[in-house]
Amino acid sequence: MRTLKLVIQYDGTGLVGWQRQAAGTSVQGLLEDALSRIDGGPVAIHGAGRTDAGVHALAQVAHARISVAHDAATLLRALNANLPDAVRVIDAAIAPGDFHARFSARSKIYEYRIWNAAIVPPFLRLYVWHVPQRLDVEAMNRAAAALVGEHDFAAFQGAGAAVHSTVRRITSARWQAQSASPLTFEIAGAGYLRHMVRALAGTMVEIGRGLRETDDLSRLLGGGHRRAAGRTAPARGLFLTRVEY
Amino acid sequence: MRTLKLVIQYDGTGLVGWQRQAAGTSVQGLLEDALSRIDGGPVAIHGAGRTDAGVHALAQVAHARISVAHDAATLLRALNANLPDAVRVIDAAIAPGDFHARFSARSKIYEYRIWNAAIVPPFLRLYVWHVPQRLDVEAMNRAAAALVGEHDFAAFQGAGAAVHSTVRRITSARWQAQSASPLTFEIAGAGYLRHMVRALAGTMVEIGRGLRETDDLSRLLGGGHRRAAGRTAPARGLFLTRVEY
Repeated sequence: MRTLKLVIQYDGTGLVGWQRQAAGTSVQGLLEDALSRIDGGPVAIHGAGRTDAGVHALAQVAHARISVAHDAATLLRALNANLPDAVRVIDAAIAPGDFHARFSARSKIYEYRIWNAAIVPPFLRLYVWHVPQRLDVEAMNRAAAALVGEHDFAAFQGAGAAVHSTVRRITSARWQAQSASPLTFEIAGAGYLRHMVRALAGTMVEIGRGLRETDDLSRLLGGGHRRAAGRTAPARGLFLTRVEY
Repeated sequence: MRTLKLVIQYDGTGLVGWQRQAAGTSVQGLLEDALSRIDGGPVAIHGAGRTDAGVHALAQVAHARISVAHDAATLLRALNANLPDAVRVIDAAIAPGDFHARFSARSKIYEYRIWNAAIVPPFLRLYVWHVPQRLDVEAMNRAAAALVGEHDFAAFQGAGAAVHSTVRRITSARWQAQSASPLTFEIAGAGYLRHMVRALAGTMVEIGRGLRETDDLSRLLGGGHRRAAGRTAPARGLFLTRVEY
């Protein structure tokens, strides 16, 4: 058995997310089905981050244990030939036997994209959250700075998650505005709670709109109630951009 | 009655094209329905270029004669509120009474986009033609240069078109390659035959792949048979990028 490491890009529109579900098309399910056909038997695929329904990835990472003897380039081509064009394997390599896409990851970087103007270009409509109101990006960045370090993110956890601890460590978080491009929020950390990046983005947009004080966010980092924080921003604006090992 | 000039951006995926058809969703139909609701009676919309099914537009231009007294900014907002998000009015203005989107146009600029690498990024899959083979862009540009001027484009006309003359005047035509971006073909002219830009792109790709001689294209400009030229490139790679008046 060898360990195959894959880097995957996908348009999450219409997918139920990374994880295989009872119903609907998942990225994991598509990859497992494709790789099982190539490997000649059932193969389990483990991803670095379990992106939600509708969330996109520029470079998700996954691994699998395989028996087939093909080289990585051949596996990459065979996988793409067995996948819909909304999901592409953009890199494949044989990794050390103990490589684990999730447990070996040092850092996962997500980006949240907002279109902050009156009209969303049709070609971006599935990849941004439309916020037409004027946003105070400096205030949003002051709030983002408070995220860096170890905090209790209980107030930013989606319902239905069962985790031992709601404490997570964030290593960087900042908003960047560029003309004629989406306003983006980039965040890096080893792990996240369910819906956490989207709840943070939604809360910071409320700060940017002047609906909340800038230091609201740092107050919530003590472990507040979910309903005390802002709305969960839509899935279509979120991208898993890279995973660092 | 006033003359309203509109600039429209649309994702042509899933649309039957600009022109209203017996079945399917057209850009003209969507705009006429939206503007009729606002104007309080049937309104006819005339576009600068009749883009085919699946073809996109960054800045299509259209005009209509309206009776309602709203200012242009109000009309723009009302139109967008009555359109699906795949179609956006990005500019609206009151034009001189004799303005005609098609007959007043001096030049229409189209762009054809090709993804010339092994793997198409999922986010571009609906907006490029995938040509993985190595292309000789210099040869394609020598062929493109021959298009400039007045020629008989009969060999590049789609079936089913009934036109008086197959002669058209092209003012510029060139391919441009940029790393990590689509390879693009930009062409400017006052008018085009049906499927002409796509037939030209398809023929030049065959030149780029070495399947045809570079001067094949100039030989076909004497008015050859459609079957003597190359294949019609797919609609999803074509954009109407702007109209000059």
